[in-house]
Amino acid sequence: MGTGFTLWLTGLSGAGKTTIGDIVGAELTRRGCRVEHLDGDVVREHLSAGLDFSRADRDANVERIGWLAARLTRHGAAVIVSSISPYEAARQRSRAMVEEFGPFVEVYVSASLEECAKRDPKGLYEQALAGKIPHFTGVSDPYEPPESPEIALETASEPPESSARRVLESLDELELVETAVAA
Amino acid sequence: MGTGFTLWLTGLSGAGKTTIGDIVGAELTRRGCRVEHLDGDVVREHLSAGLDFSRADRDANVERIGWLAARLTRHGAAVIVSSISPYEAARQRSRAMVEEFGPFVEVYVSASLEECAKRDPKGLYEQALAGKIPHFTGVSDPYEPPESPEIALETASEPPESSARRVLESLDELELVETAVAA
Repeated sequence: MGTGFTLWLTGLSGAGKTTIGDIVGAELTRRGCRVEHLDGDVVREHLSAGLDFSRADRDANVERIGWLAARLTRHGAAVIVSSISPYEAARQRSRAMVEEFGPFVEVYVSASLEECAKRDPKGLYEQALAGKIPHFTGVSDPYEPPESPEIALETASEPPESSARRVLESLDELELVETAVAA
Repeated sequence: MGTGFTLWLTGLSGAGKTTIGDIVGAELTRRGCRVEHLDGDVVREHLSAGLDFSRADRDANVERIGWLAARLTRHGAAVIVSSISPYEAARQRSRAMVEEFGPFVEVYVSASLEECAKRDPKGLYEQALAGKIPHFTGVSDPYEPPESPEIALETASEPPESSARRVLESLDELELVETAVAA
């Protein structure tokens, strides 16, 4: 059983978390890692139905993901989390849970509100900026950028393939992939 | 990465699920398996805070455990679930999720209501029988015994150590432990 790890992508809706996570996950799978991609929307459906977007429920959602990521890390998975996870404290609690069992690599997927609103892949920014969505991160709800992420990406200035390559290079530098694959 | 499996212990509160699961888990750990024991009470705390004991919320809780067990099975864990999980349909849905990735071994931990109420390790039967707990399985809420469990234990007539030994023998017959350990 190899050393698992958790790659945690945080950032605004539309910043590119899921896209980059998918590319990184595909490459890690190609290299022989057992990948588990926990996407925020999917986790909400399976684990957090009924939770809303208040601070308390957002924190509960993020901590459930952290608890799950910790368990999967323990069992040797290359866990990729794509979750807005807007609050530093909840991310730190997730880090602490994961680090009981393996490395936690926080990736700040950064793009300006203007850039994300321009992409608006789910049509949500239009509604949020029109005041129709309470608790929308970046518009009507806060986003706390990571204080010391292992990796910071600026997705307005580079395509997702380049961002993913930089993430993979960082994982190589940390020698995480080799350890997981050698398992 | 080995072949994981899920051992799912279902039965009334006080029937012996957690005790037997702990003994089996300790022995599997001794034999080199990476064990994850998902105990009903612990899972409720981490994943299902806020869910009540209505049928809908019980089903949601059991399906979350099933979803999590499936993920852990996929990553080679020897997953032990101790959960009342009173409804056959929800257990079947959990089985289907797990069997996408590995074997699901259902263990019916059976003891009569009278026996469980006599043990009453958490003092809950006394309250439930006095009408103070709505939705208490076996008293004020139904329990549907498994229709075709892989293993059936009668815990009124044998001590937990013997029940655990029979579970381990069944796992040996299914050659699950060796596969997991050889990983």
